[in-house]
Amino acid sequence: MRGKFITIEGTEGVGKTTNIKFIQDWMDSKKLTYGCTREPGGTPLAEQVRELLLAPREESVCNTAELLMVFAARAQHLNQVIEPMLGEGAWVLCDRFTDATYAYQGAGRHMRDDLIRDLELMVQGSLQPDLTLILDIPVQIGLARASERSTPDRFEQEQVAFFERVRNRYLQIAQDNPQRCVVIDASLTLEGVQAQITQTLETFWETV
Amino acid sequence: MRGKFITIEGTEGVGKTTNIKFIQDWMDSKKLTYGCTREPGGTPLAEQVRELLLAPREESVCNTAELLMVFAARAQHLNQVIEPMLGEGAWVLCDRFTDATYAYQGAGRHMRDDLIRDLELMVQGSLQPDLTLILDIPVQIGLARASERSTPDRFEQEQVAFFERVRNRYLQIAQDNPQRCVVIDASLTLEGVQAQITQTLETFWETV
Repeated sequence: MRGKFITIEGTEGVGKTTNIKFIQDWMDSKKLTYGCTREPGGTPLAEQVRELLLAPREESVCNTAELLMVFAARAQHLNQVIEPMLGEGAWVLCDRFTDATYAYQGAGRHMRDDLIRDLELMVQGSLQPDLTLILDIPVQIGLARASERSTPDRFEQEQVAFFERVRNRYLQIAQDNPQRCVVIDASLTLEGVQAQITQTLETFWETV
Repeated sequence: MRGKFITIEGTEGVGKTTNIKFIQDWMDSKKLTYGCTREPGGTPLAEQVRELLLAPREESVCNTAELLMVFAARAQHLNQVIEPMLGEGAWVLCDRFTDATYAYQGAGRHMRDDLIRDLELMVQGSLQPDLTLILDIPVQIGLARASERSTPDRFEQEQVAFFERVRNRYLQIAQDNPQRCVVIDASLTLEGVQAQITQTLETFWETV
């Protein structure tokens, strides 16, 4: 039986790292075989593309180049990691996937949705996540949290209006894909956030 | 007045480097303002993508990832270098361009032409070179010449049949685009090759 593909999405400082560990604990409790990976990245080549994408640089990066690099990394990741694991029956938990492209490159950078859709079709065919958790938090709170971490990368250097567009697109995606997406209110306490995640995972588990 | 866009194509060991210098001398003789660049590459980011593409690696590189990286580098190169130069009236001489993608990724890697055409349209719209010189040589002679140089990159490690497909596609492209492409017989002496190049450039010059 094919494994399940679960993705975690959200803007900066939303708590993805902490909650991914929590989801891994849940998967362990279900005795699942799974892999935990991230985008852009997940293979040596795709991680190198990630470095090029995130590095702050003098050169202005054209939106089309950024979009194509994101999908190049994704093609490699799907080919080398995600598809083989799912095919072997393992579950895959991925930190960001194509919803992030619609949010960051589509809404954030104003790239046309139909271009993104063409590339999505080229790279992943009909493959979609089985479950997507969208961690949602007001942009200013998330940015304040994220700013306590390391030096901002090329995306983290964007302005508040950029992240507002990203957040709103995530919420729109959730509304448009209720069978796949669940919005988690990440402004609550950690216990409150994780209670929502557990409930979401247990509801999903009943359908597996 | 917009500058002219000239591209040089050909398989390994065909003598591109030597003949690009010769073409630059011709441009100097015409007192042209021009830039000389290459693909993949031509900007700091695009050169970094080139390094990722050419590096021999353990990881098998999926064809779609390779194709998207080629077009990502091209988008950046067009946006930052080629379009601005042409717009300012400078000529651009480029070592390889999209014909190489049809030849290497299309014929060489068996990627579908319609995918390449979709990406071509996304990245360059209607932009095409004004003149393309295709340096042609039997594959075995070219590979023997190229092998005297440095360590083979990820493409140079391919088998003869791969380069036969690349060469044949270049010849097909020339046949399909006679208004733009000129095949140069690169198996002649350097003087013989450069006589053909001079004649091609002078014929083009009359149309400018």
